Amino acid sequence: MCQSVPMSNNARGAICVLGTGLIGGSLLRAAVASGYEAFGFNRSQSGVDAAAADGFDVSSDLVAVLRRAATTDALIVIAVPMPAVDAMLTKIAELAPDCDITDVVSIKGPILEAVRAHGLSARFVGGHPMAGTSQSGWAATDSELFDGAVWAVGVDPDTNAASWERVVRLAIDCGSVVVPVVAEEHDQAVARISHLPHVLAEVLASSGATGGALALGLAAGSFRDGTRVAGTAPDLVRAICEPNATALADVLDETIDALIAARTTLRENGDLGAVVETGYAGRTAFENRVQREITDVTPGKPGWLDDLRRAGQAGGVIRSLDN
Amino acid sequence: MCQSVPMSNNARGAICVLGTGLIGGSLLRAAVASGYEAFGFNRSQSGVDAAAADGFDVSSDLVAVLRRAATTDALIVIAVPMPAVDAMLTKIAELAPDCDITDVVSIKGPILEAVRAHGLSARFVGGHPMAGTSQSGWAATDSELFDGAVWAVGVDPDTNAASWERVVRLAIDCGSVVVPVVAEEHDQAVARISHLPHVLAEVLASSGATGGALALGLAAGSFRDGTRVAGTAPDLVRAICEPNATALADVLDETIDALIAARTTLRENGDLGAVVETGYAGRTAFENRVQREITDVTPGKPGWLDDLRRAGQAGGVIRSLDN
Repeated sequence: MCQSVPMSNNARGAICVLGTGLIGGSLLRAAVASGYEAFGFNRSQSGVDAAAADGFDVSSDLVAVLRRAATTDALIVIAVPMPAVDAMLTKIAELAPDCDITDVVSIKGPILEAVRAHGLSARFVGGHPMAGTSQSGWAATDSELFDGAVWAVGVDPDTNAASWERVVRLAIDCGSVVVPVVAEEHDQAVARISHLPHVLAEVLASSGATGGALALGLAAGSFRDGTRVAGTAPDLVRAICEPNATALADVLDETIDALIAARTTLRENGDLGAVVETGYAGRTAFENRVQREITDVTPGKPGWLDDLRRAGQAGGVIRSLDN
Repeated sequence: MCQSVPMSNNARGAICVLGTGLIGGSLLRAAVASGYEAFGFNRSQSGVDAAAADGFDVSSDLVAVLRRAATTDALIVIAVPMPAVDAMLTKIAELAPDCDITDVVSIKGPILEAVRAHGLSARFVGGHPMAGTSQSGWAATDSELFDGAVWAVGVDPDTNAASWERVVRLAIDCGSVVVPVVAEEHDQAVARISHLPHVLAEVLASSGATGGALALGLAAGSFRDGTRVAGTAPDLVRAICEPNATALADVLDETIDALIAARTTLRENGDLGAVVETGYAGRTAFENRVQREITDVTPGKPGWLDDLRRAGQAGGVIRSLDN
């Protein structure tokens, strides 16, 4: 079966966003700004009203929204927190089982499992735009949130080429570059660069507060930056980090070992040990990373998923599907 | 003995800055911008040349600079990294033993010990402006670096009132507010809000790099902010953190315990435990902290040092000596 389906830039199709909080709402704005027909669902009426007041087509009637998705052959974007994903999939399976589906949730393995459990994997392609702020809700949405961001898009085995191409075009149209990645490797990577920063910010903020008014009064840039994401609502932090428990616990093991080594040599010899140099090297590697462009992407070509997976592992990004 | 010495705003006196890197050089710029006669010493000729090219009076001849400090009754500001402090004190004791002295080094206990060992404590008042960037050297200096910053100033027992007033006026003239604090409490506080952020940034940057090009390619705002200070030169990180080994090791003990608790409950129950809420509360307390103004400051009045110490512990700041 050849899955390669040419798709012109103009035939964008409709977008149906389920959940119009910070990420979903910003995606709705960005899609509309790029010329998509885009509409959405939000659970809370206050969120619906806020979106409507800004001129966006959002409803709290999930059944109606999904029927419209089915009718318009929309790409459905699941943009609710992980704990609410299963209920969404149940309704999609019932009302819009033939639609393309993606998501913007911060972990990919558990999403993929849930999608498979609901029999929806044939047209599903996972996604994760690496963008956000510590704010949440419609009021924080921004059509430019994804401008210049990295957007992880799944290249898991058996991915449908046409669905994949549609998701990649949406990410690019929102201003992002695409990193192709399989679910497990995504989750291990984000444990390091997204979930560990959350946990470290929490322990740092706790430590500062333990020092009382004097410590918080002396705190400046390094504390401010190091604790920024601890300003995220606790429920949202849990929804982001806890579904990735296994990978995050493994990374915490490493981190605890590194801190114990630093603490021990600091107490015994008055020096912090190797972590100062490895940390500096890591930050330098981050600052100097290069987004090498992946070209000649041909969805559906034999071996395309493996090729893209390897290119993503090496730091490659897709900027366009048209070269 | 009454130590209260009235000093008009206009009688600023001279400032002698030893070490014109990021902090010392910025202080030289800020002092000159505020109308002080200010001059400095720098060890490297390239640093001297860079300062001279910008019109500043900096020399690599330490003996000549300290003789000038003695002649002009300058306030000497020690702005070299901790490992170089002892050599500076030796020269000050020899060439300018009657000058007022302060410093801008990131820890206060070891400085105070060294000052006492050199017999220079009678006119010494420790200082620590809570400002900086991950850059270093004259090229990074900025006359506005201290604008709106917090500047810790020592209120240790037996502090000379006139010397103290001179140091506080300098900090205020540079645009900062002053937090009065004794050396030990300063060092415990900065272990939490300055040195721990450095160590956590290093371990986070290391963990990201361990994830390779894929992890660094997916890294976004939370990783960028959480690792910012890991971009500081390793020698400077060591010079900042390692002299505070005992307090930092104690804080690392707490931090390791908190991470072990989070890791354990994450592995066993899939949840991060209490750290999410305590971290959020800590960050919220930081964002909502209030700098209550300490007024009616009368250096030399009976009990003034204890009064100021308590006011600083409660989050108070000095904005002016003239009310």
